[in-house]
Amino acid sequence: MSAPDYGRAFTLWRDAAPLWQAYTRHEFVEALRRGDLPRANFLHYLRQDYVFLTHFARAWALAAAKSDTLAEMQAASATVQALVHHEMPLHVQICAAEGIDAQALEATTEAPANLAYTRYVLEAGYSGDFLDLMAALAPCVMGYGEIGARLKGAGGPYSDWIETYAGAEYQALCHDVGSLIDGALAHRLGPDWASLPRFGQLGQRFATATRLEVGFWQMGLEGV
Amino acid sequence: MSAPDYGRAFTLWRDAAPLWQAYTRHEFVEALRRGDLPRANFLHYLRQDYVFLTHFARAWALAAAKSDTLAEMQAASATVQALVHHEMPLHVQICAAEGIDAQALEATTEAPANLAYTRYVLEAGYSGDFLDLMAALAPCVMGYGEIGARLKGAGGPYSDWIETYAGAEYQALCHDVGSLIDGALAHRLGPDWASLPRFGQLGQRFATATRLEVGFWQMGLEGV
Amino acid sequence: MSAPDYGRAFTLWRDAAPLWQAYTRHEFVEALRRGDLPRANFLHYLRQDYVFLTHFARAWALAAAKSDTLAEMQAASATVQALVHHEMPLHVQICAAEGIDAQALEATTEAPANLAYTRYVLEAGYSGDFLDLMAALAPCVMGYGEIGARLKGAGGPYSDWIETYAGAEYQALCHDVGSLIDGALAHRLGPDWASLPRFGQLGQRFATATRLEVGFWQMGLEGV
Amino acid sequence: MSAPDYGRAFTLWRDAAPLWQAYTRHEFVEALRRGDLPRANFLHYLRQDYVFLTHFARAWALAAAKSDTLAEMQAASATVQALVHHEMPLHVQICAAEGIDAQALEATTEAPANLAYTRYVLEAGYSGDFLDLMAALAPCVMGYGEIGARLKGAGGPYSDWIETYAGAEYQALCHDVGSLIDGALAHRLGPDWASLPRFGQLGQRFATATRLEVGFWQMGLEGV
Repeated sequence: MSAPDYGRAFTLWRDAAPLWQAYTRHEFVEALRRGDLPRANFLHYLRQDYVFLTHFARAWALAAAKSDTLAEMQAASATVQALVHHEMPLHVQICAAEGIDAQALEATTEAPANLAYTRYVLEAGYSGDFLDLMAALAPCVMGYGEIGARLKGAGGPYSDWIETYAGAEYQALCHDVGSLIDGALAHRLGPDWASLPRFGQLGQRFATATRLEVGFWQMGLEGV
Repeated sequence: MSAPDYGRAFTLWRDAAPLWQAYTRHEFVEALRRGDLPRANFLHYLRQDYVFLTHFARAWALAAAKSDTLAEMQAASATVQALVHHEMPLHVQICAAEGIDAQALEATTEAPANLAYTRYVLEAGYSGDFLDLMAALAPCVMGYGEIGARLKGAGGPYSDWIETYAGAEYQALCHDVGSLIDGALAHRLGPDWASLPRFGQLGQRFATATRLEVGFWQMGLEGV
Repeated sequence: MSAPDYGRAFTLWRDAAPLWQAYTRHEFVEALRRGDLPRANFLHYLRQDYVFLTHFARAWALAAAKSDTLAEMQAASATVQALVHHEMPLHVQICAAEGIDAQALEATTEAPANLAYTRYVLEAGYSGDFLDLMAALAPCVMGYGEIGARLKGAGGPYSDWIETYAGAEYQALCHDVGSLIDGALAHRLGPDWASLPRFGQLGQRFATATRLEVGFWQMGLEGV
Repeated sequence: MSAPDYGRAFTLWRDAAPLWQAYTRHEFVEALRRGDLPRANFLHYLRQDYVFLTHFARAWALAAAKSDTLAEMQAASATVQALVHHEMPLHVQICAAEGIDAQALEATTEAPANLAYTRYVLEAGYSGDFLDLMAALAPCVMGYGEIGARLKGAGGPYSDWIETYAGAEYQALCHDVGSLIDGALAHRLGPDWASLPRFGQLGQRFATATRLEVGFWQMGLEGV
C-alpha cells in the first residue's frame, strides 16, 4: 500500500528525512498493529501524549498568532479548538476508563523525550516564523495520518486508537494541513519554493522533529 | 449610572489609569451616542477596527500559547474562535453593506494609532507573560463593555454598534475575562497580588494601553 | 551628492519606500542642518530617543537570539553591547549637560510615535524571523547614516549630533549591517532573493518602519 | 566542604530540586574529578557542549530583550558577549587541539538530551518572562560553579576544565547572576517573593532544568 498524499512539501520533506520509516514503522506502532503492546506501555504513552497535546495546542495557537493571512489564522485557530475542546477531553475520557482520573493525568511528569519534542516545536515557532512552526508540526500531524492509513482495519485491542487516525475526519485534517503548508510556502517564497535554501532548512526542522518522534515511541516502549 | 463590575483587578487598574475617562467618554463615543458622528468617520473607524481585530485575534492566540492551565487555554482559544469566525466576518458584512468590499477592507493601510496600539499589545505579550498580555488586552475588552453599558438604549444611527457591546453576550464576555484575570493573578501571585510591585507594573501596561485607546478614537474622529 | 551605498537589499527597499525622502529630508532634519531647531525640541527628541534606544537594544538582542549562524549572532551581539555600554551612556551624558539628570531621563513618558515605532520593530521580530527584524531595523540604522552623510560639515549648534552619524565609525556600521542583511537573505533565500514574494513582504516592513520614522521626527518637531 | 553561596533564590531552588545532587555529583563529574573519564567521552561532551553554548548564548540574548531595567540588560548583554566572543572561541580552540576542526564542530548533530535541555530553556524564556528564563538558566550557570568549587585542585587530565569553573572569574559570574536573580525577583514581586506561588513555579522550572542537566551528563557518559 502506498502512503497517502498529503501535499508537495510534506512529500519532499518526508522523502528527505532519514528516520521517517524508523518513526512510522517503529516497534511501538507495530505492537499496536499486532495488538500485543502491553497495556501498561499504552497507558504510559497515553498519559505522556496528554501532556504532549497541551503543548501541541499551544504550538497551534502560536501558529495562529504568527499567521499572515485570515485563512491561515482560521485554519490554525480551528485546530486549537479541536484540540482543547475535543481531542484533549477525549484523552481524559479514555484515561478515566482505565482508572487514571483527570487529576492524575494533569499531574503526569513529562518524560525527557516529551520535553525534547514539545519544546523543540514551540521554540522553532517562537524563534522562526509560521513556516518553521509548520515544518516542526508536520511530522506529528501527518505521521499519525500515515500510520492510521496503514494500520486501518488491523483490529485488536488498539483498534479504537487506530481507527481515530485512519478515519475520514483525521485524514481530511492531514490533507488540509498539507494544503495549508503548500499555500503558506507559495505565499512567501513563490512557486519555486522547493529549490530555495529556506526549504532545505525547513526540511531539517522536519527531520529533527521526526527524530524526536522516534524518541517518543521509544519512551512509550520502554515505559519511562 | 455606575460602571459595571468586571472584577477586582480590572477595577483597580481602571481607577489608577489617568486616561480612563478620556477613553470611555471620548468625543468619538459621545458622537456615537448622540448619533451625530459623520458616517465617513464611522467607516474610517470600522476599516481600522477590522485591521485591529486581526491583531487582537493574534494577541488572544498568543495568550492561548502562553496559558498555564487548561482553563486559561480554553478561554483564550474560545475568544480567538469568536473573533475570527464571528466578529471579523460581521465586520466584513457591515462594511460590505456600506459599499466597502472584502478586498478593499483587507487593503486598508494601518493608521499609526492602530499600529501603536496593536503592536504594543502583542509586544507586551511576547516580551512578558500571560499576565502582561491580559493587562494590555483588558482596556479594549472591558472599555467597550463599559461604553456599551452606558450608551445602551441611546438609539440613533449607531444603535446596532451600541447594542452589540451593551448586549448580554458581550457583557458576559467582559465578566468572563475579568474572572480569567483575577484567577490568573491568584494562581501566580497568591491572594495578596494587589499589593505586589508586579501588580503596579501590570497597571502601567493597562494605563498605556488605555492611552493608546484614546489615540484610536482620536484617529477615528480626525479621519486619518 | 548621491546617497551612500549600504548594500543591495537596503537600496532596493529604500527605492520602493514611498516615504523615504519624507523621512530623511524631514523638516526636523533640515532644522538640524540649518541649526535653527529650537533647543527645547532637540531635548524633547533626545529624551524620547533615549527610550527608543532601550527598545532598539532589546530588538538587536532579539536578533542575536534569532540568529542562524555564529556570524549573525556576533554581529547582533556586538551592536547590543555598543548600544547599552556606549550609545546609551552617551545620551545620558549629553542630557546631563543640558540639565536633564539620569532619573528624569529614565522617567520619560514614551510618546505615542515612539511606542508605535519601537513596538512595531519588536513585534516584527517576535512574530517573524531574523529577516523581519532586519527589515524593520534597517530604516533607523541606515536612515541616520544617510542623513549624517548628507549633513556632514554643516556645522552649527547640532554639529556634534551630525558628525556622530557622519563619522567613519557609524558609516562603517551601516555598511556592516547592509552586508549582514544581504548575507542573511542569500543564506536563507538563495541568490535570487530579490525576486521572491518574501522580499516584497520584507520591503513592506521596511516601508512601514520608514513611515513610523517620519512620525518620530514629527513628534520631535511638535514637541509632544 | 559546604557549597558556595550564590544567593537566596538559588539556594532555595537548589534545596528544593530533587535531582540537584544527581546532577552535581553525577558519575560523569566524578570521572572528571578522578581523571578516569575516557577521552572519547570528554570529546563527545565537548562537541555537544559547543552546540549547547550556541543556544545558551541565544537564551541570554533573549534575556537582554526581555529585561525590565538597564542593569538587567547590561548584565545579560555582557554574558552574551562573553559567550560568543570568548567562551565559544575557546571551545573551538580546545577541540582543534584534539583534532576536531571548526567545520566538524559546527556540523555536530545535536543529541536528544541536548535538544531537550536547550529548547526547554529557550521556550521557557519565550513563553514566560525574564524570571522564567533566569530560573531555567540558573542550574547550568551555578551548577558548574558548584562543581568547579568542589573539584578545585583535583588535578589530572581534566584540571584545565575544572580550574576554568573553579576560577575566580567564573565564581564571580555565579555570584553576579545570583544577585541579578534576587534583584529581579524583588523588583517584580517585592521582598516576600519566596512565599508566592510564582516562586514555587519558578522552582519547578529550575528543577526541570536540573533534571535535563542530569540527562546531559548521562549523554556524555554513554557517548551517544
